[in-house]
Amino acid sequence: MPEKVLIIGAVALGPKVACRLRRINPDIDITMIDRDSLISYGGCGIPYYVGGDVQELEGLYSTIAHVKRDVSFFKNVKGFNVLTRVEAVEIKRREKKVVVRYLDEDRVGELDYDKLVIGTGATPMRPPFQGSDLPKVHVVSNLHHASAIKTAISNGEVERAVVIGAGAIGIEMAEALTDLWGVETTIVEMADQVLPQALGRDMARIVEKKLEDKDVKLLLSQKVIKINGDIENGAESVEVINQLDSTPTTLPCDMVIVAAGVRPNSELAVGAGLAIGRNRGILVNKCMQTTDPNIYAGGDCAEFTNLVSGLDCVMPLGSLANRQGRIIATNINGGNEKFTGSVGSFCIKVFDIGVAKAGLTFNQAQAAGFDPVYAVVAQSDRAHFIPDADFMFMKLIADRKTRTVLGVEAAGPQGDAVKARVDAVAPLLKFGVDVSEICNLEVSYSPPYASAMDIVNNAGNALDNTLNGNLKAIDTFEFVGLLEQGNVKVLDVRSHIQSAPFVEKYPKQWINIPQDELRERYAELTAVLNELKESPLYLICGTGPRSYEAQVFLNSKGIANTRNVQGGYGMILAIHQPLV
Amino acid sequence: MPEKVLIIGAVALGPKVACRLRRINPDIDITMIDRDSLISYGGCGIPYYVGGDVQELEGLYSTIAHVKRDVSFFKNVKGFNVLTRVEAVEIKRREKKVVVRYLDEDRVGELDYDKLVIGTGATPMRPPFQGSDLPKVHVVSNLHHASAIKTAISNGEVERAVVIGAGAIGIEMAEALTDLWGVETTIVEMADQVLPQALGRDMARIVEKKLEDKDVKLLLSQKVIKINGDIENGAESVEVINQLDSTPTTLPCDMVIVAAGVRPNSELAVGAGLAIGRNRGILVNKCMQTTDPNIYAGGDCAEFTNLVSGLDCVMPLGSLANRQGRIIATNINGGNEKFTGSVGSFCIKVFDIGVAKAGLTFNQAQAAGFDPVYAVVAQSDRAHFIPDADFMFMKLIADRKTRTVLGVEAAGPQGDAVKARVDAVAPLLKFGVDVSEICNLEVSYSPPYASAMDIVNNAGNALDNTLNGNLKAIDTFEFVGLLEQGNVKVLDVRSHIQSAPFVEKYPKQWINIPQDELRERYAELTAVLNELKESPLYLICGTGPRSYEAQVFLNSKGIANTRNVQGGYGMILAIHQPLV
Repeated sequence: MPEKVLIIGAVALGPKVACRLRRINPDIDITMIDRDSLISYGGCGIPYYVGGDVQELEGLYSTIAHVKRDVSFFKNVKGFNVLTRVEAVEIKRREKKVVVRYLDEDRVGELDYDKLVIGTGATPMRPPFQGSDLPKVHVVSNLHHASAIKTAISNGEVERAVVIGAGAIGIEMAEALTDLWGVETTIVEMADQVLPQALGRDMARIVEKKLEDKDVKLLLSQKVIKINGDIENGAESVEVINQLDSTPTTLPCDMVIVAAGVRPNSELAVGAGLAIGRNRGILVNKCMQTTDPNIYAGGDCAEFTNLVSGLDCVMPLGSLANRQGRIIATNINGGNEKFTGSVGSFCIKVFDIGVAKAGLTFNQAQAAGFDPVYAVVAQSDRAHFIPDADFMFMKLIADRKTRTVLGVEAAGPQGDAVKARVDAVAPLLKFGVDVSEICNLEVSYSPPYASAMDIVNNAGNALDNTLNGNLKAIDTFEFVGLLEQGNVKVLDVRSHIQSAPFVEKYPKQWINIPQDELRERYAELTAVLNELKESPLYLICGTGPRSYEAQVFLNSKGIANTRNVQGGYGMILAIHQPLV
Repeated sequence: MPEKVLIIGAVALGPKVACRLRRINPDIDITMIDRDSLISYGGCGIPYYVGGDVQELEGLYSTIAHVKRDVSFFKNVKGFNVLTRVEAVEIKRREKKVVVRYLDEDRVGELDYDKLVIGTGATPMRPPFQGSDLPKVHVVSNLHHASAIKTAISNGEVERAVVIGAGAIGIEMAEALTDLWGVETTIVEMADQVLPQALGRDMARIVEKKLEDKDVKLLLSQKVIKINGDIENGAESVEVINQLDSTPTTLPCDMVIVAAGVRPNSELAVGAGLAIGRNRGILVNKCMQTTDPNIYAGGDCAEFTNLVSGLDCVMPLGSLANRQGRIIATNINGGNEKFTGSVGSFCIKVFDIGVAKAGLTFNQAQAAGFDPVYAVVAQSDRAHFIPDADFMFMKLIADRKTRTVLGVEAAGPQGDAVKARVDAVAPLLKFGVDVSEICNLEVSYSPPYASAMDIVNNAGNALDNTLNGNLKAIDTFEFVGLLEQGNVKVLDVRSHIQSAPFVEKYPKQWINIPQDELRERYAELTAVLNELKESPLYLICGTGPRSYEAQVFLNSKGIANTRNVQGGYGMILAIHQPLV
């Protein structure tokens, strides 16, 4: 049993390791160090501090019983020592010592260990453009930044802000700035969609529409060139360039928030000769040990396996750090707990909608060597007669050949309900299950919380039908593009009343035969089909099932070249302006 | 490939089989019969019709596009024949014929089949007491009853109602009667708790408290003796007897709703010599075939495997019927889909809380031959700084020897969030996973939807600690009982302010040493411990973690005979009146 455990880093992972270790071993010598003075804070709460849900900064480093998590808390309550403002400089593995710098005393020293835990976290990337170090340019990484941002805003110094990066933190910060403070906010993102690491195009577009609806300006496919300003006045504007057409734009602002991703703090491990992964995170085995078995690592600085792609990944999430921390503590104490990896579960609230995903996006699945097939469904998130029932959207992805489920994404106004569906699929992803497992997934049912055929089952069914070749779908984006170009024929199987405005607006393209008349009237399509020749007839309804039914019926009548608009008009409305 | 498919029963299962079958096979001859005139309704929506969420009866048998699901709908839209008011009387298996009675014509006839599907559902039990057939005594089984109940109430004929049975339907009906109509409602239940088939005592008690808070009167452990009244006036009162002390009570009322469970409608199958299970449901294999491979059965009339207990079970749930229906259709059409069984997922809304479970309750686990161990945790359902964060309660059950997870139950005010946790555990139950899978369950995390250490992970951790012997807990009910008897010593590790009223009320029993003083002051317990001799010292805090930490600390100091009050004072408040 080790006698001395040294933990570097006192946010999320470190405290979890130390507290758990003390609980299972009263005698072991535990020391935790951190270069900051404020420790054990909930970094993911920063947007909620800026946005006003958390009134005082202390709320981010207090327990639910309103006790501050500081040095004396860890000493008196948890029973171990924390040294703050102490930076680890070097790991001397042979001697089992860490060279540290006492930041307030300008001296160095050494701390011994039998077992070392590296929980150094990650650092926000500051892209190398000019001006990124100006005053009024902030990252969202610790409570000092959080405090500075909120102080500036609450002092009325910020009318316009630019957020660089449309990942989770960028979006959450944009919401905080807009929603509480009415700051005119622009998000600049290099990719052609928000949340490119987390979501496929469909769910991302739902988020983008929500941001636009809430007056957050969104500049996609735009690259920041530089931040203008000077040391005295700080940032004054951001210059961006459109990556598609090279149009330059200058965005005047009083604050810039850089949320362009994070980089694992692995320098210490590199210096010590520990193995580093492809994402610059510290490589660990399933016991969370680095390539030195006396050194553990976890949290934002560590790299582990994505259980769907099989590739190594990093995931800066407090939840993951906490789960890993418990495992590290158990193993230091002689246990044998395994962290096998992650399926990349993710969720975010964006104003009044929730979005969640687990597994791989379509693009990630392709990059990992799969041949992904997907289905998109739109459906009521509870029995349709329940008063607050609303649309939820779900995308389910599987591999074409093996039918293995690879990923799921969902969005809708009831965030907890969205999370419920994604979290129900997530545990199965690591088992590599067939799509039929999702068709038959046993989610709990009661009308206030679900439809009898839940959206998650229907997503499975739609994907199963697609893989079987019964359902031939067209991507909603592609359909809208074709419609706007004018060269499609659409058969709308909704009622006359619902389809009339579409028939009027698109007289040459939009045909209506309601579902209950199709079996009698399908022969009327002959002229249209002759005209179409090789081109498919596009089928649409409210959300997809009726046009799917029409598709299989028409197919049985020899009309085989049809495409079902996935998620129907409901999905179009979710990702596009109304067609009429 | 079969040519003629006959389906008996046109609610949930039957329509699903027929619609799916038509979609995958345009040529097959499909006939569905039902003895009722109203078909394909959502029976689980009846309480929401009575309670006003659904305005018109039609809403229960209409599609989301407001199209009535009637004979012409199935003919024109779905492409198959439905015969209503046709009752199946006998199955002639050798001849592959079903003898039917045309109820409106008073004649019998025969219908041929190649494949037969039995989806006859279940019938509400009418316990054999006197008066159960009086006017004003209703069951909740079909739309005719639903209509009669709502008509009587909306005509102002019902001031007081008695609901017999505290299962899901009884509770939902009681809510409907009370919440919208202000009917003075009493639920009579034979068991000593509500939802005895679905929940353990803890979560049941949370439901009971909610019902009481909402002025639903609850008579547990009470048996109905008879219903008084006559044919002219209908039911006038219900006589019950307390099963514990034999006290009789008479409950005057204007309406009685019998919700005492359902019985599978398996008579037809019995008559045909098909195998019937221990719950009187029709036995089916994983392909949903009865013991006659040409006859399928599913939905409320069929019996299948509980995947945790391994025992056969019945589960009257529209969700299950729909999933099974799809499988039956696929298999009739030559496919090979499997329904392997159910883990018994369940959820219910009770006024403003949601409750869910999957797997076995403690009692069910014992009855199935396991040696169950459980942990109860109380925790915020989202990051504690999020404005609408509230307590969620969770119980996790595993087998002592194998550590296999057997069941999960949860309750809280955010029903979708409750469902999210239970639905995330449910998919794992059939794999027989170790508790550590729940400790590390990857639920998606963002402060508006979860804590960094989610309640489901903490429930896993608490159970892991219990199985490891680190956490020695006392059941909350047992603790409250002992406290009320006066013979316990309690160490409260909350703050002085929080514990002061308890110390005042229980001066001889309640000691307070706050968590942050315990490491210095634990020696003060010596006198108390001497006095306790063999009896344990009970440890309590707000929700359990701090008193657990105190427990492991005291243990390290040689004070080993302690018990942690599971879920802390939060759990006591959830199941009991406030102690102070």
